[in-house]
Amino acid sequence: MSHITLAHGNGGRLMRQLIEEVFRAELGHSALDTQVDAASLPAMNGELMMSVDSFTVNPLEFPGGNIGSLAIHGTVNDLAVSGAIPHFLSLSAIIEEGLELATLQRIIHSMAKAARAAGVQIVCGDTKVVPRGEGSGVYLTTTGIGVRHKNLHLGLRQIKDGDRILVSGPIGDHGAAVMLAREQFGLKGDLQSDADNVLALCRSLYDLTGLRFMRDPTRGGLATVLHEIQHATGLGIRIRQANIPIHETVQSVCEILGYDPLFLACEGRVVAVVGQSQADEALARWHELENGREARIIGSITSTLPLVVLETDLGGERILPELEDDPLPRIC
Amino acid sequence: MSHITLAHGNGGRLMRQLIEEVFRAELGHSALDTQVDAASLPAMNGELMMSVDSFTVNPLEFPGGNIGSLAIHGTVNDLAVSGAIPHFLSLSAIIEEGLELATLQRIIHSMAKAARAAGVQIVCGDTKVVPRGEGSGVYLTTTGIGVRHKNLHLGLRQIKDGDRILVSGPIGDHGAAVMLAREQFGLKGDLQSDADNVLALCRSLYDLTGLRFMRDPTRGGLATVLHEIQHATGLGIRIRQANIPIHETVQSVCEILGYDPLFLACEGRVVAVVGQSQADEALARWHELENGREARIIGSITSTLPLVVLETDLGGERILPELEDDPLPRIC
Repeated sequence: MSHITLAHGNGGRLMRQLIEEVFRAELGHSALDTQVDAASLPAMNGELMMSVDSFTVNPLEFPGGNIGSLAIHGTVNDLAVSGAIPHFLSLSAIIEEGLELATLQRIIHSMAKAARAAGVQIVCGDTKVVPRGEGSGVYLTTTGIGVRHKNLHLGLRQIKDGDRILVSGPIGDHGAAVMLAREQFGLKGDLQSDADNVLALCRSLYDLTGLRFMRDPTRGGLATVLHEIQHATGLGIRIRQANIPIHETVQSVCEILGYDPLFLACEGRVVAVVGQSQADEALARWHELENGREARIIGSITSTLPLVVLETDLGGERILPELEDDPLPRIC
Repeated sequence: MSHITLAHGNGGRLMRQLIEEVFRAELGHSALDTQVDAASLPAMNGELMMSVDSFTVNPLEFPGGNIGSLAIHGTVNDLAVSGAIPHFLSLSAIIEEGLELATLQRIIHSMAKAARAAGVQIVCGDTKVVPRGEGSGVYLTTTGIGVRHKNLHLGLRQIKDGDRILVSGPIGDHGAAVMLAREQFGLKGDLQSDADNVLALCRSLYDLTGLRFMRDPTRGGLATVLHEIQHATGLGIRIRQANIPIHETVQSVCEILGYDPLFLACEGRVVAVVGQSQADEALARWHELENGREARIIGSITSTLPLVVLETDLGGERILPELEDDPLPRIC
């Protein structure tokens, strides 16, 4: 059979075949038993952390990745920025009747590759099939379990006046790449999503005593992370626009289409807040890593106006608004 | 705003409001921090187990429950039948643009109630909004973490020739109730879903040395569980049809519509395989419980024909076929 049918989701023979021949063939390992209702987790030493993320990206495949690799990176990264090394993942796939089996296979193959790169195992899964027209190819949900780096307690509440804000690389590549992949704008480009795991970036800062908080700027982009920091701390934020790394192609695409790259999703970047005296050290550590070479210190936390303020290139200032309407749905 | 919009899923202000005013208001507790990417889990003693389940039931609400309570029971029950007491859950909600907020509130309210009854906490969550027409109101996914009952190792591989098969109560109520709730058949009834957690049923057998295997017969019903046992063991199964508890209303609905209740989903029943010498003890323990009063021993494992054989009321025999086409999509 070349396409998914409703019978692939009914608990019977075809579903068992799908699970064995697609999911188990790609994701299988010694700890994965597809015949049980619940998986046993090998012992983990330390405090556990848990995170969940769903993926509804459209189109399913885009330059630099697909929904499968995204579903690994998203949850792995949520744990990593929280100070935990991910170990085990659960996977749910809600598949639309009529999806090409070959497409599903490519997605699960990318997923397996991304999981190996991140050192995580998928230990349990669930599949459902919904009728043609409902769903959008496939929706994936992953929940990750990780172990917190010893004595590391990151959080918005740790942030102090004077702290510096760093970003690990150019922003908006993922959002712009997905947008172009839709081709609905009649534009084409060689833009690639930045989708990747950020384990090395996060790990490199775990022992830095001045590290306060990290987040991966996905939905809503860098701007939304800055607003979350502002809301949670009640402090102000000043960003030097010229210091924000943005690829020229992303900037051009945004100018043509009227989007602000500050609101575009990244899927392989980290925003970190670090005490002033350790910001240069953090930056130096990132610069040594392959995916941190374009990292920058972009601004700082202030106790003046409780707003997110952009210092523009011409010496002016503007208040960065909060996201209201959806600029780009279905991007992650 | 009375309905879900795409902006409720974009990471901005409306999404924060939705999470605070619907999800946090109902599901909130001291361990739930909606501002973090990953939740810290309190220490658990023992071997951990993990399970995931997605819920795409249509309609969202049915007599005896809704997709919210189902999403708790499903994952709690998968852990319970595997021999683990569930503690923490992650929750993902993929919501369709246009869903009434009041409906979502009822669903999350039921979810909170079911979680309290099962003694589990939702520690992290994710919401996505998909465009009107994609999705079907709301799809929920829950992943549960539990602690395995000490030294309890259940599994299909433990099953032996001569073992007895028990079912904890009448089968097919959930499937039939959802079917009637659709009203597409022009039938009405006072049938209620059996949706419930099966913690007490499972716990009551954990210390029984003859307990081999348990499963909740959801998708594909009792028949599918029997086939899974047959496939995994290579042994045969003989079932006395007269011993299978089925409510009269379920039987009638099935006769009118041409369905076999053996394939209808249950959401609050357990199938257990127990050594012959302890089957009566297991049954006695179930009869003492509120939701086990109608439990029955329905058949046994045999080393003769490697098939699932039904002994009919008239002394005849028939081979129970495996589910091929989907008799009832979107039932759980």
